Amino acid sequence: MHKHWIAIDWGTSNFRAFLMKDSLCVATTHAPCGLLNVPDRQFAAALQPLIQPWLDKYPRLPLLMAGMVGSQQGWLEVPYVALPAGGEQLAAQVATANTPWGSPCQIIAGVSGPNAFGLPDVMRGEEVQLTGLAALHPQAQHCVILPGTHSKHAFLLNGQIRHFSTFMTGEIYAVMLNHSLLGRDLPEPSDDASAFALGVSHAPAAPFLSNALFSARTLRLDGTLPPADVASYLSGLLIGAELLALPETQAWIVGSPALTERYTRA
Amino acid sequence: MHKHWIAIDWGTSNFRAFLMKDSLCVATTHAPCGLLNVPDRQFAAALQPLIQPWLDKYPRLPLLMAGMVGSQQGWLEVPYVALPAGGEQLAAQVATANTPWGSPCQIIAGVSGPNAFGLPDVMRGEEVQLTGLAALHPQAQHCVILPGTHSKHAFLLNGQIRHFSTFMTGEIYAVMLNHSLLGRDLPEPSDDASAFALGVSHAPAAPFLSNALFSARTLRLDGTLPPADVASYLSGLLIGAELLALPETQAWIVGSPALTERYTRA
Repeated sequence: MHKHWIAIDWGTSNFRAFLMKDSLCVATTHAPCGLLNVPDRQFAAALQPLIQPWLDKYPRLPLLMAGMVGSQQGWLEVPYVALPAGGEQLAAQVATANTPWGSPCQIIAGVSGPNAFGLPDVMRGEEVQLTGLAALHPQAQHCVILPGTHSKHAFLLNGQIRHFSTFMTGEIYAVMLNHSLLGRDLPEPSDDASAFALGVSHAPAAPFLSNALFSARTLRLDGTLPPADVASYLSGLLIGAELLALPETQAWIVGSPALTERYTRA
Repeated sequence: MHKHWIAIDWGTSNFRAFLMKDSLCVATTHAPCGLLNVPDRQFAAALQPLIQPWLDKYPRLPLLMAGMVGSQQGWLEVPYVALPAGGEQLAAQVATANTPWGSPCQIIAGVSGPNAFGLPDVMRGEEVQLTGLAALHPQAQHCVILPGTHSKHAFLLNGQIRHFSTFMTGEIYAVMLNHSLLGRDLPEPSDDASAFALGVSHAPAAPFLSNALFSARTLRLDGTLPPADVASYLSGLLIGAELLALPETQAWIVGSPALTERYTRA
């Protein structure tokens, strides 16, 4: 058995790799080399230079990958594991890919199932964070928020993901700000705490998001919101609206420092 | 008194003019010459060629304009009339613009006030359609939907707009389809009635729009929704979600034939 191995989170936009020694991370590397940046589906060719320094030291280092790398657009499509899903179910459904340099390479499947509202939902990559969290904190139940472009609310029982729901919070924020009337002719955005709080406070008042979003325009027209604060307001409104869906008041927040800080404030 | 005059609806994207003889429309013209297409705010210069054939016949023909032409980005900013607003209030606040060729020119103000959810809301142009509808159908109460990029739900009592709410239905549809994951790699969209109906049926099931929108992705992933039908589904979902905000089951729908037909189906 190898003592060293590489854990890889390969998503649509980013690539992150972790050199592991047993269960300890001893080095990391990352690159803006997500699936969208891999030409002609040449995944092995794209991967090799990213981890070559580690391969030089440990040839045929085993690889364990998660994320969109296992999707239709990825290296190898790995069918989703159905809910409820824990470490055991995920391990039973890993797929094997070939590397020209001889590393054994396994890709973890995502998870799919009906969400809290009965609609089909999917994740790829977050399942590893969730089962990892459950392993580190062996309590019976977890309620977890994974903020991001497609934010997830997940509920775990005895180490298994029981159900989860996706909210397109980050992507709606970006497209409305960059491509709709709301973002037209804005100066450099501020990170304004009171505009963010105002957005959060308006979320429950306007139960219809397509209506609430328009307030990012009208509050600017009536002078309440300086143009530089529109982005902070919109962020508060969208995060606030998302958090209304959370049935519990206590939840883990797993994500980047900037986003977890915003979710904590909201 | 002139017997002839011109009614003009000048919006952000479109220009429409109606040659009137008293209260009868005797000719129309339109051009994709909205405010965004007027260089250097030269509104009089942009207007003249559009109505020159009518001016040739009736020099100094009076003009009455409505729409975004009265906004900050328009010819002349006309302050909003506060709710409740009817024909009398609108007439009291028209502004006068100058035309180099001597036509008297008046611009109707928009209307502003708190919407059904207590957030500030605005309209420019729709107030003329609404007071026109009330004049044509002199019943005490009207509930009116004006579908579009920024769809409006308006409530009238005795000819006055009492309150209204804006829904960014059309704009969210366009930006999500053109700029988010939901629209990525789609073929030419179909106009599919069953996908539209499926979207409408899912709207009440998923009370959180940022969650419901993701189903346009997952239903495509699981094979329920052919890629060509994603746009129809998204349209049904967004119009369905908007109509949940309507307290009444009977409403006028005022708009283009294609859109009013969709709203009628939903």
